[in-house]
Amino acid sequence: MQENNAKGTDISTLGEFGLIKHLTKNIKLKHESSNVGVGDDAAVIDCKNKKTVVTTDLLVEGIHFDLMYTPLRHLGYKAIVVNVSDVYAMNAEPKQVTVSLAISKRFTLEAIDEIYEGINMACEKYNVDLVGGDTTSSLTGLCISVTAIGEADEDQIAYRSGAKANDLICVSGNLGAAYAGLQLLDREKRIFENNPEIQPDLTGHDYILERQLKPEARKDIFESLQDAKIVPTAMIDVSDGLSSELFHICEDSKVGCQIYEEKIPIDYETHKMAEELNMNYSVFALNGGEDYELLFTVPLDKFDAIEEMEDVKVIGHITNESKGKYLVTRDGVEIELQAQGWNPIKED
Amino acid sequence: MQENNAKGTDISTLGEFGLIKHLTKNIKLKHESSNVGVGDDAAVIDCKNKKTVVTTDLLVEGIHFDLMYTPLRHLGYKAIVVNVSDVYAMNAEPKQVTVSLAISKRFTLEAIDEIYEGINMACEKYNVDLVGGDTTSSLTGLCISVTAIGEADEDQIAYRSGAKANDLICVSGNLGAAYAGLQLLDREKRIFENNPEIQPDLTGHDYILERQLKPEARKDIFESLQDAKIVPTAMIDVSDGLSSELFHICEDSKVGCQIYEEKIPIDYETHKMAEELNMNYSVFALNGGEDYELLFTVPLDKFDAIEEMEDVKVIGHITNESKGKYLVTRDGVEIELQAQGWNPIKED
Repeated sequence: MQENNAKGTDISTLGEFGLIKHLTKNIKLKHESSNVGVGDDAAVIDCKNKKTVVTTDLLVEGIHFDLMYTPLRHLGYKAIVVNVSDVYAMNAEPKQVTVSLAISKRFTLEAIDEIYEGINMACEKYNVDLVGGDTTSSLTGLCISVTAIGEADEDQIAYRSGAKANDLICVSGNLGAAYAGLQLLDREKRIFENNPEIQPDLTGHDYILERQLKPEARKDIFESLQDAKIVPTAMIDVSDGLSSELFHICEDSKVGCQIYEEKIPIDYETHKMAEELNMNYSVFALNGGEDYELLFTVPLDKFDAIEEMEDVKVIGHITNESKGKYLVTRDGVEIELQAQGWNPIKED
Repeated sequence: MQENNAKGTDISTLGEFGLIKHLTKNIKLKHESSNVGVGDDAAVIDCKNKKTVVTTDLLVEGIHFDLMYTPLRHLGYKAIVVNVSDVYAMNAEPKQVTVSLAISKRFTLEAIDEIYEGINMACEKYNVDLVGGDTTSSLTGLCISVTAIGEADEDQIAYRSGAKANDLICVSGNLGAAYAGLQLLDREKRIFENNPEIQPDLTGHDYILERQLKPEARKDIFESLQDAKIVPTAMIDVSDGLSSELFHICEDSKVGCQIYEEKIPIDYETHKMAEELNMNYSVFALNGGEDYELLFTVPLDKFDAIEEMEDVKVIGHITNESKGKYLVTRDGVEIELQAQGWNPIKED
């Protein structure tokens, strides 16, 4: 477990402009379309003949992350990933991001540098330019707001609304792992809080921990789809759980769906964690969140192309709206899906 | 003074998706370039042959606003204004905004509706489309993050870096009024806290209160410049005080400046407030913040055109860098300018 109040440089010694200079001095713009980055009233972008897609996400301490077990570097990385994931979910290519940070006095310059290391690492990995932002203080928690901008040709954009009856429902990677990682971290935190002598036992859970703390967006799947010249009829990223995302696609496309429990890809570690906690691993996939996998639909005739695609599974098909939204369990029982995604508007 | 814990609808009764639906149900897109607004993973914008400018600002409770005296409607309005002001400062036309909101449980649905009323009012006034956002909860304070997107022809964009020696320094409206309003509100808040029996006395201060609580961006000046076919050599909006903004222009343009205290436009109410508080009103203009006026430079031969422009004053001229940055006081004394803008990275 991590301490964030280590000794270091007090940020008030730099002032706002000094801090901005410090944080932006090494930024190099990678894209021709990023005409002007930080340093003026606004960034300037040249989108030429493409469409621009824009998405934004706000991460709040205590709601989206717990600094007791979230390394700051990973937090910065994740803040970028969750936004570029939304751009890929439009079948568009992320190009620019802006980052706003509200930080309390307990953060040292070194702590902020760690957040930015993660941000820069993700910008490098996903080939996006950091073109602007805002840095301010907060009386209480840490708050990170990211806006991602991407581009796509008009006929390449995948909305949530284009799924048709008989389309195949496909998902990348595996589901529920990030939620399994969160369950583990919460359990170990409670144990640690009750008895600080007991060190957290996280061995053998590397995969689910990484899925929770340092998730990746599916740039590779976006590229595979480009290579295969497939434009999904509908696409969304799995941030609130499979069930909730299927609801979005079905409602926006005015269709129903049928998915098969046995086809939902779930990692061995997710299985194991669910077992340890006496929970159903399918629930992790259906109602957990933060997988950042891509869920998409394609016409039936793309079946062979999808079968050849690495790390993509067909988990069911789209039906007429009147058929409803169903999960067929391992025992062959049809259960109506519930849209109970991960809810950041907490009730407690 | 205002209470924010009035009875009303608990937002947890709606859930995240219900809340989003509620908040977005009446949005109508005004611009052809706003292809797709809220409701998918990202918004889609068509910028055709124009350049896109992007700017973002994060407003944090207790740092940028005090809910004890800030009506929520005004807060929503201001959150949009401060961002479109940055777009005008690029000499670009704002077209779209995204809004992210982090709200604690103490906010009712009616309170959030009030914030959005202000947001929608500003979107209407400045003719921008609300195309996306994120709504989440916060364990503590309210947090509003806005990203504004605008467009401009390449040769129309005004950076901070183009000012040349002998250019005229111009400013719109008047300066220091928002800071005067803040001083008044802080004084009355302290009186109220010490003795809740005493009602705040805000009469006769309407103008400075409005400048603080419900500022406007200078759409009209942007339009006047277009009409006069003037592209400023440099432009910035006054958010951190005149002195700080002049520093930005001078440093980015590698020039010096000379401005005249007697030419700085200051409203009568600002004067009066400074007097009441035994402070120098020029300090309000130089080091106060949140004026959202436009500060810009134009070549000397535009003098007549600027003189004809409504609500714009010439306050000095650009000099060679070696001459430094000076204010000539009423008594003819030259004082070196200090870049002590309003600093949201507080030291206390």
